[in-house]
Amino acid sequence: MPRNSNQLYTDYTTLLQKAADINYASAVLGWDQETYMPPKGAEYRARQLATLASMAHEMLTSDKYGKLIHELSQAPDLNDTEKSNVRLSLEDYERNRKLTPEFVEELSRQTSECFNAWIAARKQNDFSLFAPSLSKMIALKRQQAEMYGYKAHPYDALLDEYEKDATVEMLDPIFNGIKQQLPVLLKKIKEAPQVSNECFHRNFPKEPQWAFGIDVLKQMGFDFEAGRQDYSEHPFTTSFSSTDVRLTTRVDEHNYASMLWSCVHEGGHGLYEQGLPEEQYGLPLGSAASLGIHESQSRLWENCVGRSHDLWKFFYPKLQKYFPDQLKDITAETFFKASNRVEPSLIRTEADELTYHFHVMIRYEIEKELITGALDPKDLPAKWNELYYKYLGIAPKDDKTGVLQDVHWSHGSFGYFPTYTLGSFYAAQFFDQAQKDIKDLKEKISRGELTPLLEWLRDKVHKHGRRYTSEELCQQITGQKLDPQKFFRYAAEKYREVYGIDL
Amino acid sequence: MPRNSNQLYTDYTTLLQKAADINYASAVLGWDQETYMPPKGAEYRARQLATLASMAHEMLTSDKYGKLIHELSQAPDLNDTEKSNVRLSLEDYERNRKLTPEFVEELSRQTSECFNAWIAARKQNDFSLFAPSLSKMIALKRQQAEMYGYKAHPYDALLDEYEKDATVEMLDPIFNGIKQQLPVLLKKIKEAPQVSNECFHRNFPKEPQWAFGIDVLKQMGFDFEAGRQDYSEHPFTTSFSSTDVRLTTRVDEHNYASMLWSCVHEGGHGLYEQGLPEEQYGLPLGSAASLGIHESQSRLWENCVGRSHDLWKFFYPKLQKYFPDQLKDITAETFFKASNRVEPSLIRTEADELTYHFHVMIRYEIEKELITGALDPKDLPAKWNELYYKYLGIAPKDDKTGVLQDVHWSHGSFGYFPTYTLGSFYAAQFFDQAQKDIKDLKEKISRGELTPLLEWLRDKVHKHGRRYTSEELCQQITGQKLDPQKFFRYAAEKYREVYGIDL
Repeated sequence: MPRNSNQLYTDYTTLLQKAADINYASAVLGWDQETYMPPKGAEYRARQLATLASMAHEMLTSDKYGKLIHELSQAPDLNDTEKSNVRLSLEDYERNRKLTPEFVEELSRQTSECFNAWIAARKQNDFSLFAPSLSKMIALKRQQAEMYGYKAHPYDALLDEYEKDATVEMLDPIFNGIKQQLPVLLKKIKEAPQVSNECFHRNFPKEPQWAFGIDVLKQMGFDFEAGRQDYSEHPFTTSFSSTDVRLTTRVDEHNYASMLWSCVHEGGHGLYEQGLPEEQYGLPLGSAASLGIHESQSRLWENCVGRSHDLWKFFYPKLQKYFPDQLKDITAETFFKASNRVEPSLIRTEADELTYHFHVMIRYEIEKELITGALDPKDLPAKWNELYYKYLGIAPKDDKTGVLQDVHWSHGSFGYFPTYTLGSFYAAQFFDQAQKDIKDLKEKISRGELTPLLEWLRDKVHKHGRRYTSEELCQQITGQKLDPQKFFRYAAEKYREVYGIDL
Repeated sequence: MPRNSNQLYTDYTTLLQKAADINYASAVLGWDQETYMPPKGAEYRARQLATLASMAHEMLTSDKYGKLIHELSQAPDLNDTEKSNVRLSLEDYERNRKLTPEFVEELSRQTSECFNAWIAARKQNDFSLFAPSLSKMIALKRQQAEMYGYKAHPYDALLDEYEKDATVEMLDPIFNGIKQQLPVLLKKIKEAPQVSNECFHRNFPKEPQWAFGIDVLKQMGFDFEAGRQDYSEHPFTTSFSSTDVRLTTRVDEHNYASMLWSCVHEGGHGLYEQGLPEEQYGLPLGSAASLGIHESQSRLWENCVGRSHDLWKFFYPKLQKYFPDQLKDITAETFFKASNRVEPSLIRTEADELTYHFHVMIRYEIEKELITGALDPKDLPAKWNELYYKYLGIAPKDDKTGVLQDVHWSHGSFGYFPTYTLGSFYAAQFFDQAQKDIKDLKEKISRGELTPLLEWLRDKVHKHGRRYTSEELCQQITGQKLDPQKFFRYAAEKYREVYGIDL
């Protein structure tokens, strides 16, 4: 006798939410690991995390769950929300089941080894110490792509993990556009009178930096009753429910930009997490649409809002109150321009919002070749340096500031980097739409009124969780697919103001 | 074909250490809950903790584990350490299996309800709001005692959970001794010239309080590479392995005693956790002997060392450097005496180390009667106030400073309080022995040389984990069973110095 759909759906949410409890517990352990854990705690923390991960994985790939979710996907009387959850869960299940338990275990082991090798190689500033481990990792990722299956390009199978439906076919034109349009823009900027960012490199004590960062987050609408900010070596956002969202930041007393932009960036991620529907806790509709959409939220706040002239009309007098001596000779205008200085540089995470996309594109080109086998991992540094010289006109002097700078490959995260560029482009397109939908948005921002924008994002993006793919969401919000030209127009407008150039 | 003992033992440690991973993960979530969690995080945190707890419980009460541990307990070729682990695990298993899953769930649900009722009742300062929920809890605890079984007194079954082998038969003489001997001591102190603790109640800013606390912990030997201290509303110690031990403390700028003694007390707990054998992670021999022994470590450091004249010969000049203005007119002698002021008071956690035992005794008397049914929960406040007046000569004016002050009953922790007194008494007896075993211990302490004492505790207590019961440990360390007279002699000596009384 078939059980009724209600009962089945309850069984399904019970199981999925239990798995979510475990995964969120892992997130707490991970957060503590990066913020407060004493050094000797690392070894046992790693095994505790591994145990939790394998328990959640076991639950979500069990035959019992498979049977339940298959049965439920045939149930006639579910509402739209329930149907969306079930459809997405079935997709996840089928995807997860494509990997054998042995493969998952081997990948997990290789990830630990590869991460340690990366740490050691970085310390010694020597890529050759990382190469053998990375080669093994790439072999596993190729195997994984085969297990997942793909239509056109093995890299598509890996991309899909971070950005559903993203493919080489979709990304190649985007990065080709960057290759064509970005150099034109950069050339004009290079020929224009340069902008200084010296005002960020004065002495900014830690405490007022922190206090101003918190002020900014509050003004953005981050709910400190449902989240907090702490210090960590690398800023990140994590959440343990939509009512407990953790941001981290770091402080450099001689580079105020470091903390300021990380606050706004992570704040954007955090607002998305706080805006996910609480009643969908642990279910697909309670989680973010994709990494690209997540990044669109952080970059919209960081770049479109945070580095805008409008925002600093409101915030700059407040900032000056925190740093009266340091900023007494700097105008809001100078500060705005300094915030948008463009200069080719070696380190991705410190790049301006324009040259940033070359950093991503270089990794994208390299990853595709690594996955197809066209590029031998041992030739990576040479390839890296060649591409940096070609696109940015500079080349790293060592591996640390070059090929060893990012952690991602050691984690096996191939296909992740493109979401950074997608995020920026979605951000520009969404922000363009927001200006159409919200009356006088820029004026509002210049008065510090950020609530209308947050409410718009809540309504257009946050509340939907994973209900729509990135492209569906984009279509729905802006009436068209992702259009990179929105980004280039946004950039042209900004740099016209900053550098006085005409495009 | 029977598997060999090695294989069985490996299966056993794998399972037990996996359960430990989950329980330690719960501890991380619990720690965060008390230190950093934003208020709106509470609801989902509770469900995450419940999920982890039930998973660990399931593993440790499964038939599969039972079969394994029974088989292993018959294995011929285990070494002593392995045998001890297996014996203790079998005891735990059989004890856990006495409770039905339905009962465990009901108890867990009632604990949440009872805790919330306690919070509400405390807020309203009205015991009657707590009484119905507490009655249900007591009924469950009676049922639990029956399930566990006992020889003489139902309370014995509950005591055993916190202090193995502790019974009413063992505790009655101890508390009767307190009833007889303590009033004599208190009377003499009352008649002697009084000691002031005004020097603790000056204005002590937060930062130097914290910094001095950390200095003290370092001097005690607490390893900050394998642990840390944070703030919380109520100080506590927790650990996620012997290499990651967390202490918390609180600061009152107008009562320096609050932070100072909590640092030393929790530091004592923390040193025990750091001293547990790392290679026994997750196994019985990797955990503490009992709550009483745990408390002996915190009280030995707090009272026998921390409130000694000797220690402050070393530390007082350092403390004065942190607070030159506040303490310029106070001598080390005055500070030592202030640290040991005796005065009957209403709140257990703020009591001096002498009257403290009346607080415990009163709860012990009440708990026995609640469990047998001799005392109706609704008559609790009257009984409470009567006993406070009888033994301490004061009675609370309201429930908040009386019967509602402790969280324990709302957690269902009946049989827990006596471990506080046992801990003090073990501490005095151990410290007496340490002075015999370590040459010039007091002189060493007065020079700040605390390592010999820590090494002695490591060797005599910490490294054994749960291998011995409290009483076995006591016998082994001091050559005799727990002897409350050691405490009274220790107290007589201390108060002779503080109050100039002769006993």
